Amino acid sequence: MYPVEVVTLFPDSVSGYLGASILGKAQEKGLLGVTVTYIRDYAEGKHRVTDDTPYGGGAGMVMKPEPLVAAIEAARARAPAGAKVLLMSPRGPVFTQARARELAKEPGLILVCGRYEGVDERVMPYLDGEVSLGDFILTGGEVAALAVVDAVARLLPGVLGNEVSSVTESFEEGLLEHPHYTRPPVFRGAEVPAALQSGDHARIARWRRWKALQLTRERRPDLYARLEFNKADLKLLSKKEEEL
Amino acid sequence: MYPVEVVTLFPDSVSGYLGASILGKAQEKGLLGVTVTYIRDYAEGKHRVTDDTPYGGGAGMVMKPEPLVAAIEAARARAPAGAKVLLMSPRGPVFTQARARELAKEPGLILVCGRYEGVDERVMPYLDGEVSLGDFILTGGEVAALAVVDAVARLLPGVLGNEVSSVTESFEEGLLEHPHYTRPPVFRGAEVPAALQSGDHARIARWRRWKALQLTRERRPDLYARLEFNKADLKLLSKKEEEL
Repeated sequence: MYPVEVVTLFPDSVSGYLGASILGKAQEKGLLGVTVTYIRDYAEGKHRVTDDTPYGGGAGMVMKPEPLVAAIEAARARAPAGAKVLLMSPRGPVFTQARARELAKEPGLILVCGRYEGVDERVMPYLDGEVSLGDFILTGGEVAALAVVDAVARLLPGVLGNEVSSVTESFEEGLLEHPHYTRPPVFRGAEVPAALQSGDHARIARWRRWKALQLTRERRPDLYARLEFNKADLKLLSKKEEEL
Repeated sequence: MYPVEVVTLFPDSVSGYLGASILGKAQEKGLLGVTVTYIRDYAEGKHRVTDDTPYGGGAGMVMKPEPLVAAIEAARARAPAGAKVLLMSPRGPVFTQARARELAKEPGLILVCGRYEGVDERVMPYLDGEVSLGDFILTGGEVAALAVVDAVARLLPGVLGNEVSSVTESFEEGLLEHPHYTRPPVFRGAEVPAALQSGDHARIARWRRWKALQLTRERRPDLYARLEFNKADLKLLSKKEEEL
């Protein structure tokens, strides 16, 4: 059972997603265990204040260090030794599939959702790191935490069954996936490509590889530039689609 | 009111997040209107099947084109003319703050959540585009849709009040944000930096800019390399923290 603690000011924002669909099933099967820690429970005083105005002025509020660190320490005490404490933050390294694979090998995760911009800097020594979902700004770290739990959970043995290996391999190679088709053979006049209906496994593999290479070249020149081609790829790339 | 349709096989995965916190309040205020469209309602037959095995073989399932296109057409009919239909997919261009700003200016959004890898390719002509949350794989497009709704909603006038302008400006410049501090002045022995307590606005601005530049240089050399420095920045960068 892979334990995850989500530390948040908005438990209602995360509990629905965590309980539904594949993540819900993974918890029922005992493969994943998610606990939601409510930061306000660790705030003191009658009003349980969790944020305050920034030193030095400016718009927005900043999360106070005391309740957040108390919540993190409580989560750490419950989690297995060595569980990684990560703050969801636009300042962190951008999350990738490689990072998801690394995190799936950890003894567990504690994902801290702050206001996405504006956590008191003195919280940093109580973390193992920060993670950013990408170069965009969210209202809080909650969606980022959901994305990390989702991407990591689907890599845990048993969560997706045998689907996982084939699906992730393609991404690890730094390629976009080839197009997919299923029944019906004709949809509103559009046919499934002949190669995929041929039953010829070598031809299907060539078609898929060619399509994946073309798609990556077209849409993600940044990934394409980092690819290392083998001889078969070079031969494939010299062909037109109808020659596959 | 900015209308958003989320087209999904897992309404329970998205409704909690969409109804809570800032997105919930934005809907109560009439600034945002979210409708969840359940793809299975558009599937035919007793079993309302929405996916099937891939042509050409391989692991995993592929979403059938008929129910998905029918659901998209229903959502498009309800949405204002010109609302953008976007499939959440790892093949799309990676979502950024610039994209969030563009989308906030559209008449509305229809976000289509497929199985994240494996939507019949013949659905593509019924879309205006694809969006990827980043180079990682999710179980479905739902979290990606939540992230897009969240990032776009917070840019809509009135959703965050006057917080938004200052907060987003820093990202648009391609800089990470400077550190934040709030009360108490001393937390477990760690003090708020003197500059921020000085009340000297020019000094505070220098300190924040210096910190933002240093953080970006350290953590995101890719963003740093694209920065254009003005004279004041160059002067600042020649200083040490204690000289600010």
